[in-house]
Amino acid sequence: MIGAESLVRTLVASGVDTCFANPGTSEMHFVAALDRAEGMRSVLGLFEGVVTGAADAYARMTGKPAATLMHCGPGLANGLSLLHNAMRARVPIVNIVGDEATYHAPLDPPLTTDTESLARPSSVWVRRVMRTEDLGEAAASAVQAARQHRGIATLILPSDVSWNDGGVVAAPLPVPPRAKVSDSAIRDAAGMLRSRDETLLLMSGDALSEQGLALAHRIAAASGARLSAQTFNTRVARGQGRYPIERIPYIVDDAVRENAGVKNLILVGTGLPVTFFAYPGKPGLATPKDASVHVLARPDDDVIDALARLAGEFDAPARPVAPRPLPQIQRGKITPAGAAETLAALLPAQSIIIEEAITLRNFFFAALMNAAPHDSLENIGGAIGAGPPLATGAAIAAPGRRVVAAQADGSALYTIQGLWTQARENLDVTTIVLANKKYAVLFKELADVGAVPGKTANDLFEIDRPAIDWIKLSESMGVEAARAESLEQFADLLRNSFARRGPFLIELMFA
Amino acid sequence: MIGAESLVRTLVASGVDTCFANPGTSEMHFVAALDRAEGMRSVLGLFEGVVTGAADAYARMTGKPAATLMHCGPGLANGLSLLHNAMRARVPIVNIVGDEATYHAPLDPPLTTDTESLARPSSVWVRRVMRTEDLGEAAASAVQAARQHRGIATLILPSDVSWNDGGVVAAPLPVPPRAKVSDSAIRDAAGMLRSRDETLLLMSGDALSEQGLALAHRIAAASGARLSAQTFNTRVARGQGRYPIERIPYIVDDAVRENAGVKNLILVGTGLPVTFFAYPGKPGLATPKDASVHVLARPDDDVIDALARLAGEFDAPARPVAPRPLPQIQRGKITPAGAAETLAALLPAQSIIIEEAITLRNFFFAALMNAAPHDSLENIGGAIGAGPPLATGAAIAAPGRRVVAAQADGSALYTIQGLWTQARENLDVTTIVLANKKYAVLFKELADVGAVPGKTANDLFEIDRPAIDWIKLSESMGVEAARAESLEQFADLLRNSFARRGPFLIELMFA
Repeated sequence: MIGAESLVRTLVASGVDTCFANPGTSEMHFVAALDRAEGMRSVLGLFEGVVTGAADAYARMTGKPAATLMHCGPGLANGLSLLHNAMRARVPIVNIVGDEATYHAPLDPPLTTDTESLARPSSVWVRRVMRTEDLGEAAASAVQAARQHRGIATLILPSDVSWNDGGVVAAPLPVPPRAKVSDSAIRDAAGMLRSRDETLLLMSGDALSEQGLALAHRIAAASGARLSAQTFNTRVARGQGRYPIERIPYIVDDAVRENAGVKNLILVGTGLPVTFFAYPGKPGLATPKDASVHVLARPDDDVIDALARLAGEFDAPARPVAPRPLPQIQRGKITPAGAAETLAALLPAQSIIIEEAITLRNFFFAALMNAAPHDSLENIGGAIGAGPPLATGAAIAAPGRRVVAAQADGSALYTIQGLWTQARENLDVTTIVLANKKYAVLFKELADVGAVPGKTANDLFEIDRPAIDWIKLSESMGVEAARAESLEQFADLLRNSFARRGPFLIELMFA
Repeated sequence: MIGAESLVRTLVASGVDTCFANPGTSEMHFVAALDRAEGMRSVLGLFEGVVTGAADAYARMTGKPAATLMHCGPGLANGLSLLHNAMRARVPIVNIVGDEATYHAPLDPPLTTDTESLARPSSVWVRRVMRTEDLGEAAASAVQAARQHRGIATLILPSDVSWNDGGVVAAPLPVPPRAKVSDSAIRDAAGMLRSRDETLLLMSGDALSEQGLALAHRIAAASGARLSAQTFNTRVARGQGRYPIERIPYIVDDAVRENAGVKNLILVGTGLPVTFFAYPGKPGLATPKDASVHVLARPDDDVIDALARLAGEFDAPARPVAPRPLPQIQRGKITPAGAAETLAALLPAQSIIIEEAITLRNFFFAALMNAAPHDSLENIGGAIGAGPPLATGAAIAAPGRRVVAAQADGSALYTIQGLWTQARENLDVTTIVLANKKYAVLFKELADVGAVPGKTANDLFEIDRPAIDWIKLSESMGVEAARAESLEQFADLLRNSFARRGPFLIELMFA
């Protein structure tokens, strides 16, 4: 058996059944092996960022790693920014990165580079496999590492290791369960909660699942603690029937003001509330520096168990979620609030929301709270262009569920090739482009750092010369599209899109 | 003076007058400083690959570095694959990569990553500047390093270093001239050339300038040596009035066959003719393993001086370039040869050809040999998606010259955002999309490694489900476009595009 076949068979045996691929020459045998080994679905992306971003969303939705297939160093490089996001999302991914043959690389052919150096910043596991007989074991180890550490494993695959005979399929390796936190971690948290000082439970990761939110609300109801999610999160269970949760505002002044009174900070599956950027004269933490900090559970711990045990320290019974007023379809001119409310009114149950629209996100966040139950995936790592790939991967991971991307125009343009994969695979993705024709966040940021925009700044932040024609752009990649110039039109387009299979793009024309 | 201003002023003082930019929050003060300091032209790209690829072409055409402006680690990551190509092209670039404030980074905000690890594989110089007062000197040193080593200098700029007061503008640092090769290098080469054994002068870099080619042809005429360029090159002077030169074929079997008789290999501004990839059972060098190798000049040496001195060892006088038959406009169905010949017939003098079409490149190469004099820029590093950014940067670097991109469809889709910058800056770029609707090279490569394409392979190499609508895609980014379904139409569209300012895209519909 050639190496490539042992690799594919090992991945399948270890539970990896989806491969997001953008192959090149050095990956030919892997591609051929996909046809010889049953059980791996291959999904083509036209750009590596589509591949890695899709794998991120796939893992967020399924909890298990997809494989990616990318070409030699520069191919991996194109996927790195969205691997950064996946690293910050703490999701498992197994990268297969082709490379020059072991005996050819020393001659320094043109594509040769230091692939390990490129992979390491986002990977928990990096190996270049040099012998065909080691490939199966390495693949099993990669899957294990990705799952155990909820991180990115990068297997560098020289072409001769792939094409030579001698491959051995390896058995899956065990993945230990999440570690339970200590009793003292629970007791100390309970003590803080009983102190009557203002206490914030800051949550992310598994704590934002439906179950985690329910447990946290029991604790809050019993103790008077306040709950908050981080500013950006991997996945949040939201909508009617789920306990609501606010998040730390992105705007530093807002974040600091809201949390000025916090005396005790309990971290649940996350770290400190560090601001996205520093600004002259402003703090870098949303909570006061002198607040007492207690780690209830690290992101890799069994966060749900920790919350359940902490809830057990209090008497509060589980209470049903109070129903909230249903959002209503709005009419007239398109405003951010009106669009968000209209979307919330029409959102199908069990949808998946992809949110990448930094200056408009709060409108959607607020309105969708009262929509039908859904999951929300956010750009947690800050590398922009996450939206189209995340939407693509979420739809592959969760067939039958509608994916709705609330997408800023500037960021969509980094990875717009994701639309093509949505068309190719007929994915149920509705993309709503919030076309404000500028890097709106940068105008705000410029003001926040105290700089005054001059002509050059305006030139660099406006993207309306020329304006992107979103309808043509979408259609050019096979995704039907239409403009909404009123909320009535927007509602009609949403209804149409939700009523049928396949992708659709709506450009919102703000009043 | 704040750091950012000292940085911009130092860059301008050191001769850097163009900045290809895709800024984020941490670069706000740099952007503001662009307005305060005269002399820097800023060009916006919608994606970092546009920025780095444009800087590559800019350096190829001007011989001097442009600056790039990119956002924190993941922003740089998006530009890395085309920085790889620029590294292989041996051109100078100065990257300014923003980063978190020095005091904020230790808190590990979401965008934090190991930026140095990402930058090093393609950079000759990487520095994170930690004090505002050091910024000017660091910038001058970056320009010096980029120019001296013809490589990429990456300056990592924490936001507080940028916004704090205390910046000092630094004077330009000297760049030593290219080193002259030793007398013995000349003598040994002359000895080889006199040996009567089959001798190949393999050339790249500066040797492929008009002057270098003329000198090499004098040497060849006097000695009977054969001349060849590498398979891919940074810049080649071509067309009528220039001495013609063949290049090592990309296809290994062809390359090996052509060079089977080579006994002596003289390297002129390049390394060995290493094949792009290894293939089972095939050699990794285009020339025989037992050929004697002599290095006349390394890429960083004064290659022109070495060729001139070597020519002086022989008596051959300079002879004028023989005129070659003029290409003729072809008619009828669109074939690769017909399209190439038609383009060659119409190409304006002093055009710049950007070539990224691996399976069709030989048609264009052959026909353009006899076109009006022009420069050709090739994808030397193998990272695909080079075309649209290179075309953009070449047009910025050489206003008044027509840029013509012979562009495969698969590769164009990696960095198609380059079209938008062409529209925004009204650049004289004519893009010819060679839309074969597949990764044609991969079918060939699959066969070459001895693998048989199955269903998955076909799925991963065909990009016609859905077909890209190139007209809509181009128009969506503000570039007018049209389809050519006959060579007559193609000729008309070329004439129209060449007769006016601004970008245009032609989709060639092959028969």
